[in-house]
Amino acid sequence: MADLTLQTGGLPFRKMHGLGNDFVVVDARSAPDLVNEDTARAIGHRSFGVGFDQLAVLRESDVADLDVEFWNSDGSKADACGNASRCVARIIMDETGQKAASIRTGRGTLQAVDAGEGLISVNMGQPQLEWDQIPLAHPVDDLNALPIEGAPGAAGIGNPHMVFVVNDAEAVPLSDVGPALEHHPLFPERTNVEFIHVIDRQTLRMRVWERGGMITLACGSGACASAVVAHRKGLTDRKVTIHLDGGDLEIDWRDDGVWMTGPITHVFDGVIRREFLENI
Amino acid sequence: MADLTLQTGGLPFRKMHGLGNDFVVVDARSAPDLVNEDTARAIGHRSFGVGFDQLAVLRESDVADLDVEFWNSDGSKADACGNASRCVARIIMDETGQKAASIRTGRGTLQAVDAGEGLISVNMGQPQLEWDQIPLAHPVDDLNALPIEGAPGAAGIGNPHMVFVVNDAEAVPLSDVGPALEHHPLFPERTNVEFIHVIDRQTLRMRVWERGGMITLACGSGACASAVVAHRKGLTDRKVTIHLDGGDLEIDWRDDGVWMTGPITHVFDGVIRREFLENI
Repeated sequence: MADLTLQTGGLPFRKMHGLGNDFVVVDARSAPDLVNEDTARAIGHRSFGVGFDQLAVLRESDVADLDVEFWNSDGSKADACGNASRCVARIIMDETGQKAASIRTGRGTLQAVDAGEGLISVNMGQPQLEWDQIPLAHPVDDLNALPIEGAPGAAGIGNPHMVFVVNDAEAVPLSDVGPALEHHPLFPERTNVEFIHVIDRQTLRMRVWERGGMITLACGSGACASAVVAHRKGLTDRKVTIHLDGGDLEIDWRDDGVWMTGPITHVFDGVIRREFLENI
Repeated sequence: MADLTLQTGGLPFRKMHGLGNDFVVVDARSAPDLVNEDTARAIGHRSFGVGFDQLAVLRESDVADLDVEFWNSDGSKADACGNASRCVARIIMDETGQKAASIRTGRGTLQAVDAGEGLISVNMGQPQLEWDQIPLAHPVDDLNALPIEGAPGAAGIGNPHMVFVVNDAEAVPLSDVGPALEHHPLFPERTNVEFIHVIDRQTLRMRVWERGGMITLACGSGACASAVVAHRKGLTDRKVTIHLDGGDLEIDWRDDGVWMTGPITHVFDGVIRREFLENI
């Protein structure tokens, strides 16, 4: 085994996940600040690179504990990611020894707190509940019951969400129905699509078709949108546990925003080899 | 960034690939020798763990440069893997400074050589060309033209292969036709299924449905089987370049066995955290 510390010029990173929503975290305070569209795509490939749902680049911040920039594995930038923010909050809290952390993202500064028992909470902010904020293509009578079969609700959590309440979320053929719904003309910027069923007023089951054509294990903003829509439809309390494919998130819609609480896992640390980076 | 060398109790590994056929390599000469069915499955998950097609555990050998044990990401053991053996050969050659390496696998001892320009060759041995070695369910008139629509050929390269020569391998709907062919009753242990088309006597295009229900980027034994069947059908010379989804392999069926030559890439080094291993 080569001594990792001898690989000067390589790119150190952490690999973390929140409920299987997985991240490469590059700390540009100490590692080379070289992530761009090409390196994000190369590192993001699960067979040829490292693989991730999002890559988070950490930098010094003037206004928060850290500035974080998010990349998708197709080389595009992502505005914010709740699960990744929870992972980054863990890193900050380990450094500072504090129980709270602030993270500036493309969506503004997010506040996170240590919720104990290994759980991290992050405030995703208030949901967007106006048609042109989500955005929809035109005004509708009722955001909680769109004029679409199944009367889904809509909410924005930094990105658009359409939430269907069904009898059995397990039974929904996600990959069959997802693509058309993602591209429904009511959503000019396309939309994430959640299917939930109500277990009780404090518990939901959710499955998600993410915008961009993916079935993912745990979409944090989708869990927030599902909790908001279910509450606005009168089906659940403001605080719910949501069973996702990758595990459970607790969503609490408080006066100061939608808080998302869940576990995070730091799987491994790595150093991408210089030769790999030079050949991108 | 935590100092990787301080993570005592973690599991160091290399991540490598040959044409996108990717491997976690654990050197049990210096790292904890703790890979078993459970750890292989946990490390093998691409979101919750590290992710790999196969995991290779390296150990001291009495008869070769190294003994190598292969695991699949479902926790089962694999007999041998040509691309992984080429990766391991690179590690040995870097250690010894020699241009050759020997690797004992479940299929016997494989010989590898440095082919220059970053390429590594491995001798996969002679193909199995008897019906009960592959194995088939019963004898057939002609192993080069099985009594199946399309008259595929059959060969064993440590595992069974059925090779169809088609006009355009790109046009084959692999995931539609793969499952039934993999489970064809002529193959009691199921089979890998290759679709090839001939570009010229020195060049093939190949796509593969791997036994176990996968479309992979580069099946090394499938490339060997395709070269053997194409040559036995009189379509190609003994030495061919095969275009796979993940890149090119050169296959050369010599007197001493089927040699496979191609590039390998060492992507990153990592250390799986002790906490992760303790929670498997």
